[in-house]
Amino acid sequence: MTSLDDLPLRDELRGLTPYGAPQLDVAVRLNTNENSYPLPDEAVAAMEKALSAVLRDLNRYPDRDAVALRTDLAAYLGHGLDQANVWAANGSNEIQQQLLQTFGGPGRTALGFTPSYSMHPLLAAGTGTAWVDGRRGADFGLTAEHAVEMVRRHDPDLVFLCSPNNPTGTALPLEVVEAVAEATRGMVIVDEAYAEFARPGTVFALSLIERNPRLVVTRTMSKAFALAGGRVGYLAADPAVVDAVQLVRLPYHLSALTQAAARAALAHTAALLSTVDAVKAQRDRIVDTLRGWALPVADSDANFVLFGAPRGDSKSTWQALLDRGVLIRDVGLPGWLRVTAGTPEETTAFLNALEELL
Amino acid sequence: MTSLDDLPLRDELRGLTPYGAPQLDVAVRLNTNENSYPLPDEAVAAMEKALSAVLRDLNRYPDRDAVALRTDLAAYLGHGLDQANVWAANGSNEIQQQLLQTFGGPGRTALGFTPSYSMHPLLAAGTGTAWVDGRRGADFGLTAEHAVEMVRRHDPDLVFLCSPNNPTGTALPLEVVEAVAEATRGMVIVDEAYAEFARPGTVFALSLIERNPRLVVTRTMSKAFALAGGRVGYLAADPAVVDAVQLVRLPYHLSALTQAAARAALAHTAALLSTVDAVKAQRDRIVDTLRGWALPVADSDANFVLFGAPRGDSKSTWQALLDRGVLIRDVGLPGWLRVTAGTPEETTAFLNALEELL
Repeated sequence: MTSLDDLPLRDELRGLTPYGAPQLDVAVRLNTNENSYPLPDEAVAAMEKALSAVLRDLNRYPDRDAVALRTDLAAYLGHGLDQANVWAANGSNEIQQQLLQTFGGPGRTALGFTPSYSMHPLLAAGTGTAWVDGRRGADFGLTAEHAVEMVRRHDPDLVFLCSPNNPTGTALPLEVVEAVAEATRGMVIVDEAYAEFARPGTVFALSLIERNPRLVVTRTMSKAFALAGGRVGYLAADPAVVDAVQLVRLPYHLSALTQAAARAALAHTAALLSTVDAVKAQRDRIVDTLRGWALPVADSDANFVLFGAPRGDSKSTWQALLDRGVLIRDVGLPGWLRVTAGTPEETTAFLNALEELL
Repeated sequence: MTSLDDLPLRDELRGLTPYGAPQLDVAVRLNTNENSYPLPDEAVAAMEKALSAVLRDLNRYPDRDAVALRTDLAAYLGHGLDQANVWAANGSNEIQQQLLQTFGGPGRTALGFTPSYSMHPLLAAGTGTAWVDGRRGADFGLTAEHAVEMVRRHDPDLVFLCSPNNPTGTALPLEVVEAVAEATRGMVIVDEAYAEFARPGTVFALSLIERNPRLVVTRTMSKAFALAGGRVGYLAADPAVVDAVQLVRLPYHLSALTQAAARAALAHTAALLSTVDAVKAQRDRIVDTLRGWALPVADSDANFVLFGAPRGDSKSTWQALLDRGVLIRDVGLPGWLRVTAGTPEETTAFLNALEELL
């Protein structure tokens, strides 16, 4: 039998394992920050109709530029953006990969601040972009001073920010984004996958796009829109950035089914986003309950909560919760675990299981 | 207004334009080798049902490994292959990009033989892989002797073969594939996007997989299966190759909609492939008619025909056909044009328009 080692693999890939959380068949799955609510009837019916309308003509390639979908996404974002400001792909991972192919790559450097979304350095590696870790503080915070110092020290071609930050949960003050954008000659990618779950008063980077053509906001329909299985990520930026990623995007990367389903979903934004408040309520319930138990908990603007495991023992806590039918995420931060805020019932199951371990 | 030149683009991308044929709204579109036949009722109904079944649960991520789809694709291919031999992605472009990320990249070289599928060198560039052009003969043929000589001279990490070759149309003798696989220490990618249209007696490379773990066959559902809008490409290879591409694939790259639609289509393979004979008949009609007019025509095993333009004037022929409502493809080979074999009516429209130009 042939093994990986027998193939002429790139040296950097040797010994690696594929990225991804275990896909286990467990009653309560709170490990990948999915929206726990199935799609509402209204959205399902609209998507069925939209998909049926394109099936017969699937023999033709889709609109390569996905103009109608980009128009709808821009309308959803507001801020005076239009389709020229927006680009869409199969998940925000593909968006970020395209940005790295366009502005990073061999001989170039991307700067991030861990702990953050662990795909950012993997996407950098996959595109031959050097990765520099600027690190966050012990409280997982990121100040403008520290971020700017790292930019000055490493002179990156791209800076990855993440707000609300995954896996810690806290949104970034807008002045940090502004200070980084001011300090760098490179592109600034602000990953806002969880924006819709932020606490009141949070300001996002969309408002900065008009003033800064090197600022890119990435978003997804996987979380608040409950469309993880549909794979739709997008970016908002200056039209020149959208033009630039066209140079590396695969032609016809976004299927006619994806475009149709996403547009139907966007036409029912209110119905789909109606779960956001319920998720936030459970998120806040988790934060309050765990703090009531004197566990350390990061402030959360997302649909998940990072918390300190009882006795700092994250590995055995993760396993003990799984033994009780609750799957959460060990994000590789010793002592900490991440749990997705699900339905009230799922949250109760998690809290009850965790309480047994205290 | 910001222009591309104002952004910190990679130097290699400066001055490029995005890949892709013009998407023009013309009555007869024979420029992108689509299958001209809309999907049959039977397949549409099955896909509607399959999509409806997954819509409500799109809040969950899709099967990251697409095991059920890979099982169905392996069963379609036969040759004793199973899901461990097959990997699927959003079009064979994404498959080939993943192969380049895994086995190519900075410091590595891919060898191809132009004229061939023009995305191969673009995908190499997009992954930082050096591209060497081994070139075909004046008759667009590729002999084992020449291919092996180029392998010896350039010592590539990947060799791209294309059979039937796009844009010339002719399948590669199996001994060329075998000789290249024998001669190289690198991976051999055989792009068989148009395999189902080959003339009787053509032998494909699937039979070589068992003996050679460095041989990869890529296929697509875009052509014979008439699923261009659905974006499903796949590879067949040794299971170790499938394991290897997992190291670079984006997690959850293939949506639940794509997986469901493709499986429903594969369950109706006979109905979908029922158009293949009709397309081949029009392909042969084009070949015979043009040869009857004493135009040079390449042998075709695909759903398209490469032919010499009247008076060798490909640019004005392309425009004159477009003026007559027939869009074909200028593939950048001076004097030559490529036309897709469509329905009998489309073929008649093309032949009538071309006859006017003789």
